[in-house]
Amino acid sequence: MIKATIITIGDEILIGQIVDTNSASISKHLNGAGITVEEKTSIGDEAEQIEATLHRALQSSQVVIITGGLGPTKDDITKHTLARIFNSPMHEDERVCEHVRTMLERRGISFNDLNRGQAMVPDCCTVLFNAYGTAPGMWFETESGGVVISLPGVPFEMEHLMEDEVMPRLKARFALRANVHRTMITAGLPESMLAERIAEWEDALPEWVKLAYLPSPNIVRLRLSAYNQEDGEATRAMIDELFDKLYDIIPQHIVGFEEATMQALVHDILCKRGLTLATAESCTGGTIASRFTAMAGASAYFLGGVVAYANEAKRDILGVDYDDIMKHGAVSECVARQMAEGVRRITGADYAIATTGIAGPTGGSEAKPVGTVWMAVATPHRTVAMMRASGSDRGQIINRASAYAIEMLYKELKEA
Amino acid sequence: MIKATIITIGDEILIGQIVDTNSASISKHLNGAGITVEEKTSIGDEAEQIEATLHRALQSSQVVIITGGLGPTKDDITKHTLARIFNSPMHEDERVCEHVRTMLERRGISFNDLNRGQAMVPDCCTVLFNAYGTAPGMWFETESGGVVISLPGVPFEMEHLMEDEVMPRLKARFALRANVHRTMITAGLPESMLAERIAEWEDALPEWVKLAYLPSPNIVRLRLSAYNQEDGEATRAMIDELFDKLYDIIPQHIVGFEEATMQALVHDILCKRGLTLATAESCTGGTIASRFTAMAGASAYFLGGVVAYANEAKRDILGVDYDDIMKHGAVSECVARQMAEGVRRITGADYAIATTGIAGPTGGSEAKPVGTVWMAVATPHRTVAMMRASGSDRGQIINRASAYAIEMLYKELKEA
Repeated sequence: MIKATIITIGDEILIGQIVDTNSASISKHLNGAGITVEEKTSIGDEAEQIEATLHRALQSSQVVIITGGLGPTKDDITKHTLARIFNSPMHEDERVCEHVRTMLERRGISFNDLNRGQAMVPDCCTVLFNAYGTAPGMWFETESGGVVISLPGVPFEMEHLMEDEVMPRLKARFALRANVHRTMITAGLPESMLAERIAEWEDALPEWVKLAYLPSPNIVRLRLSAYNQEDGEATRAMIDELFDKLYDIIPQHIVGFEEATMQALVHDILCKRGLTLATAESCTGGTIASRFTAMAGASAYFLGGVVAYANEAKRDILGVDYDDIMKHGAVSECVARQMAEGVRRITGADYAIATTGIAGPTGGSEAKPVGTVWMAVATPHRTVAMMRASGSDRGQIINRASAYAIEMLYKELKEA
Repeated sequence: MIKATIITIGDEILIGQIVDTNSASISKHLNGAGITVEEKTSIGDEAEQIEATLHRALQSSQVVIITGGLGPTKDDITKHTLARIFNSPMHEDERVCEHVRTMLERRGISFNDLNRGQAMVPDCCTVLFNAYGTAPGMWFETESGGVVISLPGVPFEMEHLMEDEVMPRLKARFALRANVHRTMITAGLPESMLAERIAEWEDALPEWVKLAYLPSPNIVRLRLSAYNQEDGEATRAMIDELFDKLYDIIPQHIVGFEEATMQALVHDILCKRGLTLATAESCTGGTIASRFTAMAGASAYFLGGVVAYANEAKRDILGVDYDDIMKHGAVSECVARQMAEGVRRITGADYAIATTGIAGPTGGSEAKPVGTVWMAVATPHRTVAMMRASGSDRGQIINRASAYAIEMLYKELKEA
């Protein structure tokens, strides 16, 4: 089994100033190709710590991927540290130098010594050309047959280098076996009840598959994983069979497969059936619209949305009855219904979702505490509404209410 | 100096199925209290690996915080592994048991053996009561004077436990010194040019402060950090003085302080001046609205937004001239301007932002490739528009275009 360690470098990660998304994305690439990530480590911009961590990683991993610390400024020490570890002099890479100069000139920036420094690379490494940025990636071979790869920390530059340079080279360099992961998405059963319902199936799983429960607000994902398999296709087929059996136990609770989010399930149904969608959001503030429009192809069904924050916007754009707002409050069933019906009418969409609630931290009352959210879905057949207490933290309320509302739409679409 | 290691447990992190946000949030808490995080490590649900990693962490860290692996199902092994490491029998905690039962009953779920298992805790630990979930936190004292804390992996449960239980106990347990971080936000200078401009200031920095450059699409953050300071207040004052000197070198490039995002800067200006805002988004699909409405207090100025994805929505809701759409295309300067002016008119807002572009992956042409985005800002004085090529990846285009558009608004507000 080929094992990997991912090392992300940067004090900003250790003090919590940024969330490290790079290591998740690198893991996906490696796993997909059958390389098992055994550990991820984040450390600071300290030469000694980088060296110690790299040595430790190489004791059990054949592949070590390092991100970060390749910028032009003084706090970026990864490259010089690697040159020292590999005991290698450095030289200026002409292609990188020309590329950096051209990139900067296009942006009207003059080329300086710091930029020239970015074109310096250790003699012993293979340069991984970074078409999207100024810091090149580097590939080092260790004496014990391992590989150390250094990539820039800017997420999309790292991503392109992984795809275009790193993965093809790793596949050529190692005889890789397959890691197979399949995920089934369940809804409507909390983790402990789900475990009880499928206990017999779980106990009968063969030893070479590992089951994981991944709970989130309204769904639980079940993932089956098999590592280091000789025949990926055959393993996939066997895992599919295991999932077929699971399906027969709780058919009404299976809502999808793999990474599919609830919005992706809705997306697929709308695309397949040629139906259209509109949104009218108050407390979720555009989050529902942004979740759909983040998916490629959303323009096929997403006609538009209204973020009706102010009462006047609810009235003037969506046609909500102002007297109802005054009488029942903006956070009420009748306003949620009118918002959904209103945006459906003005856009001509087949389906519409609406939310109105109190995201806090202020604005709550005893009758309607922070977290109270009314949701409505208007369809060609009817309008349904529901109230959910969605937590106490603003971000959590927005996220949960968005998830609940999209789930409501999903149920309407499934029943239609 | 009190050092900490954070260990996040879960195969889903190693295979890249989820992004680990917990460790960033824990880091923030620890750092704010003067505890220096020296390393973060993510490992799988494997008892041996958990044990080895914990032992290694305790060699240099006095505080080790572990998240994950506390759920009710078979893949959750953290608690039993810790009981074995600390050589401790387990017992049922009555308060936790009652709490789990009540929580489930409220949701209409029957209490089963798996739930009962969640109330089992090692005898030697102090239970950290989890009011928001079914898995309690645990606090262990090691023989060598260190502390090991185990928390659930669900982000908001972990967050509440950190705030309510862990931080007060850590402050009482250790004599903490201060870690001070201050960040200044610059705009308009790329990293290498900025470094050149402030080189003299950087070279003169005292040894006890560390400077970091944190570049993002349109801004570079400069962070000064001082660790393990006796007098946090005095250190803060000294760092402020250093920043004052920096300000004098590039006053026109300083746009804010600390974590403030561009939208937070706009938020502050709008609140202070009592101005209002509306948005009209096509390609950014609600992202700009959601960035503003994610901030507490947005309802004071954010009147509403329209996500006008379809051409008909641009015409019917925002009043964009349909002939102009046909003649110039939906992605054009005149449509961006009419969208901004339209939403400003229908909501009565003082300021309005609009975006229209090609987020891809399809829909591009030679004249208007994927990534082409027109942005407009309508103010009480004028309407300005700008075109930016915003990358090639759909997510990147949406994010960058949102950032650029908010920056445009910021500039208009600063000049007004």
